[in-house]
Amino acid sequence: MMNIAVAQSGGPTCAINASLVGVFRESLKVAEIDAIFGSINGIEGVIQNHLVDLKSIILTNDDIELLRQTPSTVLGSCRYKLPDSSEDEEVYRKIADTLVQRNIGAFIYIGGNDSMDTVNKLSEYFRSENLDIKVIGIPKTIDNDLCITDHTPGFGSAAKYVAVTMNEITRDSIVYSIPSVTIVEIMGRHAGWLTASSAVLHAMGETAPHLVYVPEVKFSIDSFLSDVRQEMAKHKAVIIAVSEGIEVPEGVQSGVVDNFGHKYLSGIGKYLEDIVRSEIGCKVRSIELNVMQRCSSHLGSRTDIDEAEAIGSAGVRCALEGHTGKVMVFRRVENVPYTVKIETANACEIANREKFLPKDFINSAGNNINNSALDYFLPLIQGEPHLITENGIPKHFAIHEYVLK
Amino acid sequence: MMNIAVAQSGGPTCAINASLVGVFRESLKVAEIDAIFGSINGIEGVIQNHLVDLKSIILTNDDIELLRQTPSTVLGSCRYKLPDSSEDEEVYRKIADTLVQRNIGAFIYIGGNDSMDTVNKLSEYFRSENLDIKVIGIPKTIDNDLCITDHTPGFGSAAKYVAVTMNEITRDSIVYSIPSVTIVEIMGRHAGWLTASSAVLHAMGETAPHLVYVPEVKFSIDSFLSDVRQEMAKHKAVIIAVSEGIEVPEGVQSGVVDNFGHKYLSGIGKYLEDIVRSEIGCKVRSIELNVMQRCSSHLGSRTDIDEAEAIGSAGVRCALEGHTGKVMVFRRVENVPYTVKIETANACEIANREKFLPKDFINSAGNNINNSALDYFLPLIQGEPHLITENGIPKHFAIHEYVLK
Repeated sequence: MMNIAVAQSGGPTCAINASLVGVFRESLKVAEIDAIFGSINGIEGVIQNHLVDLKSIILTNDDIELLRQTPSTVLGSCRYKLPDSSEDEEVYRKIADTLVQRNIGAFIYIGGNDSMDTVNKLSEYFRSENLDIKVIGIPKTIDNDLCITDHTPGFGSAAKYVAVTMNEITRDSIVYSIPSVTIVEIMGRHAGWLTASSAVLHAMGETAPHLVYVPEVKFSIDSFLSDVRQEMAKHKAVIIAVSEGIEVPEGVQSGVVDNFGHKYLSGIGKYLEDIVRSEIGCKVRSIELNVMQRCSSHLGSRTDIDEAEAIGSAGVRCALEGHTGKVMVFRRVENVPYTVKIETANACEIANREKFLPKDFINSAGNNINNSALDYFLPLIQGEPHLITENGIPKHFAIHEYVLK
Repeated sequence: MMNIAVAQSGGPTCAINASLVGVFRESLKVAEIDAIFGSINGIEGVIQNHLVDLKSIILTNDDIELLRQTPSTVLGSCRYKLPDSSEDEEVYRKIADTLVQRNIGAFIYIGGNDSMDTVNKLSEYFRSENLDIKVIGIPKTIDNDLCITDHTPGFGSAAKYVAVTMNEITRDSIVYSIPSVTIVEIMGRHAGWLTASSAVLHAMGETAPHLVYVPEVKFSIDSFLSDVRQEMAKHKAVIIAVSEGIEVPEGVQSGVVDNFGHKYLSGIGKYLEDIVRSEIGCKVRSIELNVMQRCSSHLGSRTDIDEAEAIGSAGVRCALEGHTGKVMVFRRVENVPYTVKIETANACEIANREKFLPKDFINSAGNNINNSALDYFLPLIQGEPHLITENGIPKHFAIHEYVLK
C-alpha cells in the first residue's frame, strides 16, 4: 500500500479541477493506493507539509461533478520556482520529508511549463537520493504553449470563450451607422494560440476577426494602421484580435516581473485604441477579455473538460507503471473524427520551453490566420458542459472555504 | 389592412431581438396587419425611409429561434435625439411621410428612456396632425433604470452574466496564498441596479462580493480604503463590485459626452486599483466587464428572453387596441411563484427619467446590498437558453450581412 499526492500550480484554467478529478477517480480505483492527498498552493503545500485528505473532502458523485465544473484550482496555486538542488538542497529535503513521512509513492503535479521544471528537478533529486517516489506532470495552460503535446488541457475552454465572446462582441459592435474599430486584447505572453483561435469564426462564414495580431509576427504600428484603413474600406465595423504579448515600443508594458522572470503585460489594447483614435480618428474601443477567458467554466468545452480528466487519470496509471519525470501529452491521431491518444514525454523536454504557432497557421501578410489552421482549433472547442446550477448560477465546489484560509 | 413598423435603439442587450421576435410573431397572427417593416438604425431609418420587409428576411422558425438568441440589435441602432417639433418640424414631416407613404398604422420602438422620449414626442405630433399612427414603446436596457416598470428586458440577462462571472472571478482570485483585492467594474451610469445584482451570490452562501459600491451612495476614498482594510482582515481575497458611475474626484471620467449629454465613463476600476496599490500596497487588479455584460447571450436568462418576447407581442396588441404614446411595463405580482403582468404607462412618465435603487436595498454602511433585496433580483436570472450551435459556438441571425452595410 502507498499514498498518492496531487497539486495544482500556475494560472487558473477551466480544466485544472477536471484533471484533479481524473487523478482522484483513478486513485480510488487502484487497490494499492490508500490515501489521496491534495497539496495546498501547489508545491508550497508539500514544502510546508500542508496537505489535505481528499477522500474526506470529495465525498459524493455530486462533489465530483461540481469539481469538474469549478474553474481555477480548488487546492490553490503557486508561482514558486524550485531552485536547483545544488543551490538549495534544504527545500528538496523538506519536500522529501513530507512525502516520505506520509508514505507518498507518487506525486502528480498539474501545471504549465514552469511546473514541468519542478517535475523534472524533483524526479532527478528523488532518483539521486534513491527515493522511490514517482513524479508525473499533467499539463495545463490556456496559453497552449507546451512543447510535444498537441494541445494543453484548459486551452479548448479558453479558446471557446474567446470565439463565442468575439462573435458576441461583433454583434455588439456592428449596430451603429458610423464606422468603428473594436480591438479585443487576448491573453498569451509569447505564443499566439489563444488569439489565433478567435479565427474559428471564419469557419462559420463570419468575416470577423478582420485582423489578428500574434506575438510570432513582428508588429509594426505603420503596417497596423495601414491594415486597419484597408479593412475599414471593406467593413463598417472592423474587429481586431490582438495578443497581449505583441511587442510594441517601450512604455506600454508595465514592466512588473513575476517570480519566473515573466513580464506582466497589460494595456496593449488600450495602447492601440489610442493610436487608432489619434491617427485615424474614428470611433474606437478596446476590450480586455481579462481573467474571464481563463475562468468562464459556464462556457467550458466539453471536449476539453473530458480530456483534462482523462489525462489526469492517465498520469496516475503512468506513475503506477513505474515511470517518473514524465509529462502526459496528447498526440492527435485524426481531425475527423477527432481522435487523440495520451502518451508520455520526458519532463526535461517540456520544462522551460515554449511552443509557438506554426508559420503556416499565419497568413502571408502576418495579420490573420489561414483557414487551413482552423482544423486544428475546431475539435478542441466542441461540446457543452452539463452544468449543475443553483439560483440560475452554475455551482462551484467549495473546498477552499475551509482549506485555503 | 395596415402595415406595422418596428425599430431598435440605444445600447445593445441580449433581449432586444427577442422583443423584435415578439412584435414580428404577434403581427403575423393579426389579420389586419399586412407588411411588417423593420427600420434600420432606429428612428434614423424612418427619417431616411430606410425600411426592410421583415417577412422577406425572417423566413423560418429556425430564423426566429436564431433571432431570439442573437445579442444586440439586428436592425442596427442609433443614439439620435429627436428635437422638439417646435424647433425642427422638418424631421417630423419626414417621419410622417415615410410612415404614411407605406401605410404604417403602428410604430413600435424598442429602446431605453431616450427612446421613450421619441415615443412621447412622435405620438403627440401625430395626434396634433390628426395622423392615425399609433406609437408604442417597448422598454429595454441593461441599466434597469426605467421608471414605473418593475424591471426592463435585457436586465435579467445582464444581471445573470454579472453574477455568474463574479462567481468565476472569485474562484480565479482566491488561488494564491497572498492577500489580494479584485475590483470588478460594472456598467450603470447613474443607477446601481446591475452592480447590485452581483450580490445574488450571497444567496448561494458566497461571501463575495465583499463590497458593493453604487452611484446612489456618495463615494468617499477614505471610507473605501477603510472598508477594504476591514474586509482584508476577514478574507484573503477581497472581491469588490463597483459601478462605473460612482462619483470620484475629477480627472477620472474621460469627459466624452454622447448625443444625449451622457458622460462616457470608464476607468473607475483602474482608478481604484491604483489607489489600493499605492495606499494599501497589496496585490490588486481591476476587471472591466465591458460590453460582455450586455451581449453575452450564450449566458442569457431564459426568463428575461421569454419576457422580452412577451412584452414585444403585447406592444402590438396595445397599438391595435387603439392606444398611442404608451410604454409597455412589467408589474410584479409575486416573487414566489414569480409572476408578472404586462401593463401600460404613459411614455411621458418614463421618458428622460431614471429609477434608482431603493434605499432599503443598500446596507446602512452604504457598501453592500441587503439580503432582503435579493428576492427582487433572483427571479430575473432564472433559466438557461436552449442554444442552437455550430462548431461549438452559438449561432447568430445575420440580417445585418445584407441590410446594415
